[in-house]
Amino acid sequence: MEAATDVDGLVAGVLAGERRAVARAISLVEDGRPELERLSAGIYGATGRAATLGITGAPGVGKSTLAAALVAAARAQGRRVAVLAVDPTSPYTGGALLGDRVRMQEHATDPDVFIRSMATRGHLGGMALAAPEAVRILDAAGYDLIFVETVGVGQAEVDVAAATDTTLVVLAPGLGDAVQMAKAGILEVADLFVVNKADRDAAGEVARELRQMLHLGTAREREPQVLSTAASLGDGVDAVWAAIEEHRTWAEGSGARDAKRRARLVAEVESLAAERFRLAVAAALTDDPALATDLVERRVDPYGAAAALARRASR
Amino acid sequence: MEAATDVDGLVAGVLAGERRAVARAISLVEDGRPELERLSAGIYGATGRAATLGITGAPGVGKSTLAAALVAAARAQGRRVAVLAVDPTSPYTGGALLGDRVRMQEHATDPDVFIRSMATRGHLGGMALAAPEAVRILDAAGYDLIFVETVGVGQAEVDVAAATDTTLVVLAPGLGDAVQMAKAGILEVADLFVVNKADRDAAGEVARELRQMLHLGTAREREPQVLSTAASLGDGVDAVWAAIEEHRTWAEGSGARDAKRRARLVAEVESLAAERFRLAVAAALTDDPALATDLVERRVDPYGAAAALARRASR
Repeated sequence: MEAATDVDGLVAGVLAGERRAVARAISLVEDGRPELERLSAGIYGATGRAATLGITGAPGVGKSTLAAALVAAARAQGRRVAVLAVDPTSPYTGGALLGDRVRMQEHATDPDVFIRSMATRGHLGGMALAAPEAVRILDAAGYDLIFVETVGVGQAEVDVAAATDTTLVVLAPGLGDAVQMAKAGILEVADLFVVNKADRDAAGEVARELRQMLHLGTAREREPQVLSTAASLGDGVDAVWAAIEEHRTWAEGSGARDAKRRARLVAEVESLAAERFRLAVAAALTDDPALATDLVERRVDPYGAAAALARRASR
Repeated sequence: MEAATDVDGLVAGVLAGERRAVARAISLVEDGRPELERLSAGIYGATGRAATLGITGAPGVGKSTLAAALVAAARAQGRRVAVLAVDPTSPYTGGALLGDRVRMQEHATDPDVFIRSMATRGHLGGMALAAPEAVRILDAAGYDLIFVETVGVGQAEVDVAAATDTTLVVLAPGLGDAVQMAKAGILEVADLFVVNKADRDAAGEVARELRQMLHLGTAREREPQVLSTAASLGDGVDAVWAAIEEHRTWAEGSGARDAKRRARLVAEVESLAAERFRLAVAAALTDDPALATDLVERRVDPYGAAAALARRASR
């Protein structure tokens, strides 16, 4: 990509909902290209209309199967849907591990469904900062409902899935029990729990254990529901879809959605500013290898060095 | 904690290797107390002597059992050992979920073993920045070998375990397969793999799959070994201990250890400085709620707002 006209053309393409422009714009986010700032400024006015739905849970619980069934439910209501599958980057694998998106293929030929895997190759701040911008691109392109699916249950994955209007956490018997979820802070961010593979014996126990953990927690504005599905059989998916819509209606009406969005934007700007600053500090340390040597030789300690750098930069 | 004398006393206690002082100093890190800067400055000169060993892997693979066996091996050589078990914080759970440290209890009465669970309640930057400071406290207190054990396989957990001289990744049949590990970037950071629960049928397959994934990756300075253990039975632990020592000898001799330590310190200082800056930005946003409103009402986009804040702060 080169100069001004390209970004302007890309912005126009995204705003017109052109799939190719949307795909290119998301690649630009993945790569953390400098054009990103102008892209962001160009599309931002057209965002805020889509509803966003985060889906997270341990590998193998059946997130993709459930997501595919929920896409079908949304399509049955005529809504335009985008699915963003966010994975941490590994130089070993790139995006090549996303073969488990097969279930989504039934929607691949639907012109009103956009499916995209996303890795973060160069974006400052990684997934947590790249995903919201990709969501805004999909929003600006006119998708009514945007799924953000993350793989894994680490803190970063939870944070990405939580940065949505409605966050759905999927569990399954024998995979990622409630205690492990609690450790990743996943209980706090869920608006809705789905115990998938409910055709298995242990599913009832997972749901019970989960309700117990929730009961131990602090009271929330709205207690999350715990539902059961056997998504591969289609059982229970309609009830999940209804619960998602119910949460959305509540969140919109109560102001909870707008409050969450505002807090999220502020946190994102804080992080973006901090990352910009980190780059400036990294450049300063590269220019001044003496500081690294001072650190290694223990003439200055890490906290002292950070304070000195922060002072220097804010003068 | 109050004024000057307390931190000075704490520093003296840590340097004298007093367990109570060490415990209090780590609590101070967990809570992200302002005294941390003086503590850090006070102890830093006495650090850099300990060898550090990171242990990570999915829940249930037997990390704690293996760690306990390795502590015994280190003790048999007369080395003083500290174990730092790092967990993400959850307001639901605090540190209360660490009941699985039972295996470590056999070492609890050994005056030359220090065991500590650590959550990050208030430290700026979370686990990734709190853990290295806690390690330095243990280093300054005179422990020869410091284990850093993390729970889970998310990016944050991997980063913490990787910030050590030797990083050991534990796998087990049926738990956290190689593909999932690759996604979390865990393959790249491992100096040594241990397939635990080798008494199970599928262990050989896990080791094969792992070697295949490693083979696909880019060449490294030193290829990580893949070993098998049945830690609960004690099988294979001696070979793992020998491989750890071998890696340490190589890393010290080749300069790889010092290069890694230097890079780590620089990265830590960058992050600490960026987090300081983030706090300044957060304060600026709190003082000026108009910016949040401008964001919500789409008069300024997140990247534009971050750039403006970064410019403002570095004037």
